[in-house]
Amino acid sequence: MQRALDEARRAALAGEVPVGAVITDSTGNVLASAGNEVETRQDPTAHAEFLALSAAHAARGGKYLTDCTLTVTLEPCALCAGAIASFRLGRLVFGAYDPKTGAVEHGPRLFTQPTTHHKPEVIGGVREQESAALLKAFFEAKRDA
Amino acid sequence: MQRALDEARRAALAGEVPVGAVITDSTGNVLASAGNEVETRQDPTAHAEFLALSAAHAARGGKYLTDCTLTVTLEPCALCAGAIASFRLGRLVFGAYDPKTGAVEHGPRLFTQPTTHHKPEVIGGVREQESAALLKAFFEAKRDA
Repeated sequence: MQRALDEARRAALAGEVPVGAVITDSTGNVLASAGNEVETRQDPTAHAEFLALSAAHAARGGKYLTDCTLTVTLEPCALCAGAIASFRLGRLVFGAYDPKTGAVEHGPRLFTQPTTHHKPEVIGGVREQESAALLKAFFEAKRDA
Repeated sequence: MQRALDEARRAALAGEVPVGAVITDSTGNVLASAGNEVETRQDPTAHAEFLALSAAHAARGGKYLTDCTLTVTLEPCALCAGAIASFRLGRLVFGAYDPKTGAVEHGPRLFTQPTTHHKPEVIGGVREQESAALLKAFFEAKRDA
């Protein structure tokens, strides 16, 4: 999670909503990491976790990421939760809960749906306060700007 | 929908599950089209509609696709429905309903969720039988192979 938090801080410095993500394999080896790049790329799908999943997939080859863990500072949205299911990711670890757009523990709760054919192990709330504090500070600074 | 069906047929010839997608702007101009490329790319996120959305976004620049229509032969899954919401797509037209992995009229029904902040106009079942027949023929041929 430290590396994901570092990615989130780097994203904030680039004017991005501070979310960071890391993919590790079963030995803990880092396959990819990314921060949110929605503004930089002007691409609303360039979420940290989506970029990290795609990069890990590209780096490793093969079709799936069944033995991998995605560690991300914020609860994934529907797009990213859909990508997690598509890549058959082994484990999802996330920091802050996201009642507004989260799709794991909120809203569609995608991994509880019978139409979601792969469900990763999910561990939420890891270093939750640090992850949430980054987001809070970012939006407060933006509002005061 | 004709062009989406053509893309789906082309996908089937390449050994892909036959799904095709087209993005048009408000004047009906085609911005991008794609067939499913999951097997070709060995990428489980390379769905026809996701590829078409990304290509249209890249072709046009700007952040969103609010004035655009996605026409796809199959009801989108959670990943693609999430991408549709992220791109703030104006209208979704789809062919066959997908009770197994569909996320628009089945499962999470993503556009009915209060946590989905953009909901496109949705028209389902357009040339439904042709779209479904392509899929049925593909899976029957695969089963008999």
